Amino acid sequence: MPSEFTITRQGEFHETDMSGIMHFSNFFKWMESCEVAFYRTLNLPLISFTPGQVAGWPRVSASCQYLAPLRFNDVAEVKLYVKAVGVHSVTYVFQIRKEKKLAALGEMKAVCVTVDDRGEMAAQPLAPAIRELFQVASESAWMVP
Amino acid sequence: MPSEFTITRQGEFHETDMSGIMHFSNFFKWMESCEVAFYRTLNLPLISFTPGQVAGWPRVSASCQYLAPLRFNDVAEVKLYVKAVGVHSVTYVFQIRKEKKLAALGEMKAVCVTVDDRGEMAAQPLAPAIRELFQVASESAWMVP
Amino acid sequence: MPSEFTITRQGEFHETDMSGIMHFSNFFKWMESCEVAFYRTLNLPLISFTPGQVAGWPRVSASCQYLAPLRFNDVAEVKLYVKAVGVHSVTYVFQIRKEKKLAALGEMKAVCVTVDDRGEMAAQPLAPAIRELFQVASESAWMVP
Amino acid sequence: MPSEFTITRQGEFHETDMSGIMHFSNFFKWMESCEVAFYRTLNLPLISFTPGQVAGWPRVSASCQYLAPLRFNDVAEVKLYVKAVGVHSVTYVFQIRKEKKLAALGEMKAVCVTVDDRGEMAAQPLAPAIRELFQVASESAWMVP
Repeated sequence: MPSEFTITRQGEFHETDMSGIMHFSNFFKWMESCEVAFYRTLNLPLISFTPGQVAGWPRVSASCQYLAPLRFNDVAEVKLYVKAVGVHSVTYVFQIRKEKKLAALGEMKAVCVTVDDRGEMAAQPLAPAIRELFQVASESAWMVP
Repeated sequence: MPSEFTITRQGEFHETDMSGIMHFSNFFKWMESCEVAFYRTLNLPLISFTPGQVAGWPRVSASCQYLAPLRFNDVAEVKLYVKAVGVHSVTYVFQIRKEKKLAALGEMKAVCVTVDDRGEMAAQPLAPAIRELFQVASESAWMVP
Repeated sequence: MPSEFTITRQGEFHETDMSGIMHFSNFFKWMESCEVAFYRTLNLPLISFTPGQVAGWPRVSASCQYLAPLRFNDVAEVKLYVKAVGVHSVTYVFQIRKEKKLAALGEMKAVCVTVDDRGEMAAQPLAPAIRELFQVASESAWMVP
Repeated sequence: MPSEFTITRQGEFHETDMSGIMHFSNFFKWMESCEVAFYRTLNLPLISFTPGQVAGWPRVSASCQYLAPLRFNDVAEVKLYVKAVGVHSVTYVFQIRKEKKLAALGEMKAVCVTVDDRGEMAAQPLAPAIRELFQVASESAWMVP
């Protein structure tokens, strides 16, 4: 029942833009990569397909505050905290740090859904076995003063 | 002195992911593309280079609420509203609609900076000539009930 | 039975990299966007889903020669030529031009496949009705001297 | 004086498309990431900035043959071989393998250039100290039967 999880990433050339820094949209991809790796440790699939049905975790909302730029080859830590677990959803806070210094602060809410043959999405209550995989982190762990 | 601006986009194949819908990070690229086109109508460069100095509009924050998925080939309207003009920054609200229905609601704050030879960024007060290019939209224009 | 097709694109900020020009991988996305628009004029889906089966056009090969850089806001023409139609595949040549000058020369071979429930791909002979939608362009049309 | 170099990558969710496999354009990003890591081991910058001048390695050509799809979470080896060293350029072959099986075969030619203040690129002969960092791999090492 972990409440936090960390991956390390290195800024890639194709993630930069002509201003010389990592494009702001790529921070969201890094957050997702951290979530994916977290799910892997939980043995929980981010997406699964069964005949006539897809189950997944689309995003309800995502946000990021940019505090310091990341550049090509910069090594950064992406740290996920479980902020809240709802009936159908999980909310994460992400801290992205370069040499301990906070570069970005993100948040993402994902909802558990099934999608039927006609592409219709329906939110699903988290099964107890899934719910107990997520431990909510204490606010003091992720809150930035 | 416009306060809103609209572009039309069509969901591209490479913007989808394996869940069959547009990846959530691409909504941020669409918002930026709308901002870029808006700047073009203002004759304002999103980025400019002079010897020893770059001037640009990096993002301070960005957020998006996802209300309905967009799919490959979907045609959507991306509408920008100027929400606020600060001393050094401009804040936008974005509405992304498919067949009039709201698919996503975004917000982005960009700050006017110069970057010197050593890569140091410094926020710049908006010049009066630039400031008067932005007309703040009334809340009733962009507020979603 | 068209043999060529053209779209116009404008270089986006997020398509550039820190060297100040469009990242080389994005030329492949532009080629695909041109192919997608071409399929739309043919009323041919690039991908379709029926219960238990997906039909699509994955790439067998793709290549690009880069002759001149494209930059942010550059307007370019992406022109597709049908180079060859095989039993299971179509091969395209792409010319990307800025102010008439050739910036890139690409080629892409796509094969018609179905994918079954277990994810196994099988090449499909082009149906006669599909085959006759493609007219092979004469070499003199697309060959660059 | 290495002639080959390997990195390991894992297919990311945002790298897939709605057909369920990694989008073909992303293979080119993986090749570049391998090249970048190779340059790092050589202590050679892929790009460098000095007042009034940028030095870098833009691509002259890139190609890829797709032999088997890669999927979300697939672990793959990206292996670079130095195929040729020219007066101004280096040509690489890339093999991308999943569980030893070849999934893609790429090639990329990069040219050493400087870019002046007006954005004009000029090819530069490889300095002897740089040239001797690259050892051409024997064809038997990278040639696929």
